Amino acid sequence: MDAYLSAERAGTAAAAAPPGGAKAEDALVALTHLVDADLAACNRLILEQMQSPVALIPQLAAHIVAAGGKRLRPLLTLAAARLCGYAGARHVGLAACVEFIHTATLLHDDVVDESALRRGQASANALFGNKASVLVGDFLFARAFQLMVDDGSLKVLAILSRAAATIAEGEVLQLVTQNDTETTEAQYLQVIEGKTAALFAAATRVGAIVASRPVAEEEALDAYGRNLGIAFQLVDDALDYAAEQEQLGKTVGDDFREGKITLPVLLAYARGNEHERAFWRRTLEQREQAETDLPEAQALILRHGALRDTFARARGYGGAALAALGVFPPSAERRALEGIVAFCIERAR
Amino acid sequence: MDAYLSAERAGTAAAAAPPGGAKAEDALVALTHLVDADLAACNRLILEQMQSPVALIPQLAAHIVAAGGKRLRPLLTLAAARLCGYAGARHVGLAACVEFIHTATLLHDDVVDESALRRGQASANALFGNKASVLVGDFLFARAFQLMVDDGSLKVLAILSRAAATIAEGEVLQLVTQNDTETTEAQYLQVIEGKTAALFAAATRVGAIVASRPVAEEEALDAYGRNLGIAFQLVDDALDYAAEQEQLGKTVGDDFREGKITLPVLLAYARGNEHERAFWRRTLEQREQAETDLPEAQALILRHGALRDTFARARGYGGAALAALGVFPPSAERRALEGIVAFCIERAR
Repeated sequence: MDAYLSAERAGTAAAAAPPGGAKAEDALVALTHLVDADLAACNRLILEQMQSPVALIPQLAAHIVAAGGKRLRPLLTLAAARLCGYAGARHVGLAACVEFIHTATLLHDDVVDESALRRGQASANALFGNKASVLVGDFLFARAFQLMVDDGSLKVLAILSRAAATIAEGEVLQLVTQNDTETTEAQYLQVIEGKTAALFAAATRVGAIVASRPVAEEEALDAYGRNLGIAFQLVDDALDYAAEQEQLGKTVGDDFREGKITLPVLLAYARGNEHERAFWRRTLEQREQAETDLPEAQALILRHGALRDTFARARGYGGAALAALGVFPPSAERRALEGIVAFCIERAR
Repeated sequence: MDAYLSAERAGTAAAAAPPGGAKAEDALVALTHLVDADLAACNRLILEQMQSPVALIPQLAAHIVAAGGKRLRPLLTLAAARLCGYAGARHVGLAACVEFIHTATLLHDDVVDESALRRGQASANALFGNKASVLVGDFLFARAFQLMVDDGSLKVLAILSRAAATIAEGEVLQLVTQNDTETTEAQYLQVIEGKTAALFAAATRVGAIVASRPVAEEEALDAYGRNLGIAFQLVDDALDYAAEQEQLGKTVGDDFREGKITLPVLLAYARGNEHERAFWRRTLEQREQAETDLPEAQALILRHGALRDTFARARGYGGAALAALGVFPPSAERRALEGIVAFCIERAR
């Protein structure tokens, strides 16, 4: 709870979005441009390292690795290293590690959640089956560690192996709290800190490590990544109920159909009357859902200000992420990383 | 194929079983006694390291880690280190790593193969569900890397991360060749070298590394473990069709029901007539199986000497494993590791 409270305070103190009102996607484009050559090298390394004599591995990996993802996490590693004045090439390999760990998690998450679509394409799971998704995820996870071993830093290995364990803990806790409307906000925060924020924090922290910067900068980049990751996930959980998403042609209601207990639901449940709580228990605990239930869930969430307050909470964490960058002098990299806070909060899915 | 041919030659040259004709289980008991205190320390570390604030993780892990497995792989690490004259304690942590990687693989394999039973108990998958098995496997895998980082040897990390990638490749290749009666013996060997022998080889090799022994001993222990692992898996694949297993109250026919293409099947298929090959295609490729099909498969395998020849092949690899130990002077540890070759070949499941 302390982390949350301090983030809330930071949120009121710091600017919630960078000046200029640029559209959310522009910030991502700006960051991508800034580390253009590094990202190209990272993408080459990713393609090279997912090769295997077992042809199904690159086939399946290509489907998810090369499916046009934003590469947000490796971008953070690349930019964090540059922010720290790093002039070498180690950050490229570590950015690829971070993307491999993320991809392995996605593959295992697809198995877990029986989700049919990811980024609007058929999921690897639906195309190749559960078995292959689990095993190729394992391969990519092992490859990530091989890349770290090649890099040769035990400190980096410690950070990313701890992040991997924390991600798994977050995913298991999410599974345990699924379909349980009595889940507390503290448990929900523990889930998203694990499943999302831990890798964001590790991704940015290793930028300071390759640059051999003092521990204060390491911790600042960790705090930036962690708060950014929480904000990112809060927004993701809000967008799953946002009517605007439907107008953009994006899927909504995935979390609802799976019975995931996210902050918009927790807030609406806590603020609802007994009749409404019975609705949430029927749809999310007993998983008895009719056609009209998703619109009803969206209406309840809207009525109780649960979406508005989830976004406000995300802005609070975004503010904490911005504040963490304060130890670094102004630079193009710092501006780009500040822009990413706005991107994570204002983006469509 | 070279490895296989040289193993065959070694098999005719070296003794297939240690003198004394001791029963198979006795060799395992002897090895366990020899490293008794180390194994106890390893078991304590395993229990300690599988803890997590997320209660389902130790619950599920306990089901498989503490289910009374033989601990064969960590025993190999402990004995190999002692064989090399190692007097420290690092081998205990690395033995725990090896067991965690093995356990993670079992958990993911349970998901993959929808197997209902493992070691006669309900599988973690059947009890806790696919989702939890995948994620707790991920947790144990990450913990294994954290333990390696604590150990601090990049050389060990390189060996075990490469083994982890090779295991995943072997498992994916098994998936690709499943239900395909045109699978070649070379492909089958690649599968079992990946899914089983790679971890045996890494488990024994790290014994030489913690003891800082010359590369010749490292390679000897690698060869011992690799050949032992292949022999172990060949026997496992033979036992799945062995009538004696049924008399011992063990399950048979798991591989048959899943359509796994193992050496007994490959040999019987190659030696069978067109009518018999149609039987194998119907049962393993089209997966159309009736009650009487398993007994029929067993009869065909017996008639063509496929079980006998699979065991002979295992003895060949066992001979190569014994020969690899030749670089070490006689010792209680060497005798115990020689005994394990006999155990792997003569054991019931």
